[in-house]
Amino acid sequence: MPGEFDFIEWIRSQQRPSHLVNTGVGDDLAVLKWPKDDLLIAGVDQVLDGVHFDSKMHPPRAIGRKVMNRNLSDCAAMASLPAAAVATVALPRGVGHDYAKQLFLGMKEAGEVFDCAIVGGDTGSWDGKLAMTVTILGRSAGVQPVLRSGAKAGDGIYVSGPLGGSILGRHMTFSPRVDLGRELAKRGDAAAMIDLSDGLSRDLRHICRLSGNLGAVVYADRVPIHDDAQAAFRLDHVSPLDHALNDGEDYELLYTCRNVATMGIYIGDISSAPGIWLQHADGKREPLEPKAWEHLL
Amino acid sequence: MPGEFDFIEWIRSQQRPSHLVNTGVGDDLAVLKWPKDDLLIAGVDQVLDGVHFDSKMHPPRAIGRKVMNRNLSDCAAMASLPAAAVATVALPRGVGHDYAKQLFLGMKEAGEVFDCAIVGGDTGSWDGKLAMTVTILGRSAGVQPVLRSGAKAGDGIYVSGPLGGSILGRHMTFSPRVDLGRELAKRGDAAAMIDLSDGLSRDLRHICRLSGNLGAVVYADRVPIHDDAQAAFRLDHVSPLDHALNDGEDYELLYTCRNVATMGIYIGDISSAPGIWLQHADGKREPLEPKAWEHLL
Repeated sequence: MPGEFDFIEWIRSQQRPSHLVNTGVGDDLAVLKWPKDDLLIAGVDQVLDGVHFDSKMHPPRAIGRKVMNRNLSDCAAMASLPAAAVATVALPRGVGHDYAKQLFLGMKEAGEVFDCAIVGGDTGSWDGKLAMTVTILGRSAGVQPVLRSGAKAGDGIYVSGPLGGSILGRHMTFSPRVDLGRELAKRGDAAAMIDLSDGLSRDLRHICRLSGNLGAVVYADRVPIHDDAQAAFRLDHVSPLDHALNDGEDYELLYTCRNVATMGIYIGDISSAPGIWLQHADGKREPLEPKAWEHLL
Repeated sequence: MPGEFDFIEWIRSQQRPSHLVNTGVGDDLAVLKWPKDDLLIAGVDQVLDGVHFDSKMHPPRAIGRKVMNRNLSDCAAMASLPAAAVATVALPRGVGHDYAKQLFLGMKEAGEVFDCAIVGGDTGSWDGKLAMTVTILGRSAGVQPVLRSGAKAGDGIYVSGPLGGSILGRHMTFSPRVDLGRELAKRGDAAAMIDLSDGLSRDLRHICRLSGNLGAVVYADRVPIHDDAQAAFRLDHVSPLDHALNDGEDYELLYTCRNVATMGIYIGDISSAPGIWLQHADGKREPLEPKAWEHLL
C-alpha cells in the first residue's frame, strides 16, 4: 500500500517552477525569495469535516478547493496578492491515495487561478476525521494592506455582492474576490475591509470593534439578498433578510469608504455613537445582534 | 459559555510587540515587514491525537509545546532563524476555554525561547479529535539555508546527539536544535541537513535520494544510543541499536560534511555506490532498511 512518502513524491512531481520559490516541496521547509519592497501578509484557515464541509456529501476535490479559497478570500480582504501556500491534511486512515490526490488537486487548482503555488505541507493519517489547513502568504505588491481597523465615523458601509443561503451550496463553490479587493484598495474605496465568513452581523462587529469601538447602522432595505436566501426561506421559514444578515460563508467583501465608493452596494454607515443597528424602512431601529453560528469551545 | 471570539480576544491580549509585525492576531491576516536581505523559509507541521500525542496522557501545555517545537526543529534543519508562526487548533467540542488556553500557552512559550511570535491563527471546535498545526516562518538572517539535497559522495555523516526510545517521553519534551543548526551552517559543517523526525534509517534515505540518489554506509558501532533506547529494549526486546536507527522523533540533527566536522558525532559516509548500508564492527554489511513507522494513506 502506498504511504506518505510516495504521496509526497507525487506532490513534488506536480510542482511548477516559480520565480519566488528557491526550494519547494520535499525539504524540511520551503525557501522563498521575498520581493524586497513587499510586505508579507500571512495567515491560516482550517476546514473540518462536519463543520466547514461534509465528507459524505462533498467530493474531495471540492473540499480541497474550499480550504484554499477560504485563504485566498482572506488575501482579498487584505487587498494582498496571493504568492504561495503551505498545507496540511489529516486523513482518516484508509481513505486511499486517490482521495488524497483529489484533495491536493482541489487546493492546487484553486491556488493556480491566482498563481499561488503550494510550496510545502504535511500529510498524516489518523483514526480521526478529515481536517485540512492552508497557510497563505500574500504580497502587498504595491498596494497597502487594508485592515479591519481602518473605519472612521461617517464612512459608508458596502458589500460586494448578494448575501445569504450559502449553505445551499455556494459555501463550497465561491470565487474569492482577490482582484476586487485589490481594485477597491487602489481606488481608495476601502478604508476597512473583511471577507464575509462569519456573517454580516458579526463581521461588521469585528470592523467596528477594531476601529475603536465605533457604531454602525445598516439599512434593512439596502441589504442585497441572494436568491439562495430566498430558497433557504422556503425551506426553514427564516426570513431572507435574516439569512443575508447572519448566515455567513458568503465570501463577499464588506468594507467601509470615507467618500462615496466607486464600486459595491451601499448598505449603511459607520457612526461614533455606540451600538450596531438595523434600521427598517419605517425608520425603526433594532440592535443588529450576531445570530451567526459561533464555535463554542 | 465563552466562544471562539472571546478566545481570539484573549490571544490578542497575549501578544507582545515585535519589530517584524505590523499587524498581528485579529485581522484577516497578519502583516509582516520582511527584512530586505532575508530569504523566507516556510513550512507547516501538524500534530494529531493518537499519532503525535495522546490527549489522555499528555497535558495540553505539552501538546502545544510539541507542535511548535516540531516546527522550530524544521527551522533548525534549514539553519534558519525562527521569526513568526501561525497556528490552527481543531478542538473537540466541549473541552473548554482553559484547555484551549493551555494549548496556546504551550505553543507560545516554546516559540518565545527563540523569539518566535504567534501572529495569527484559526480556532474551531468539532465532533472530532484534537488536531493542531503550526506554520513557521524563518529568516535566513545571514546564513544560507542548508538543504537535504546538499550531500556529495565522500561526505561524512553526523548526528547531533544520542538516538532511540523517544517514545518513552522525549518526543514531547525535546529542545529544537535551532542554535546548533545555525552554528553548523556557519562553520561549514553541514552540507546537507535534516532533523531526525522519521528515524535515522528513513531520514538518511531522504538526504541520499534528494542529493542525486547517492548511497551511504552507517557504522553500527558509531551510532550513539540514548539511554531511552536501552530502557525501551528492556520493555520490548527490540535491540537498542534498532531503536536508535528506526524510532524517529529524536529531533536531533542529521547532517553531512565535506571535511571533518568540528561538531557532532561521526556515524558513517556518503558514497557514490548505490544502497544504504549498515556496517557492523566485523565488516559485514546489511541493507539499512527503514523500519520507522510511516503513515499509510
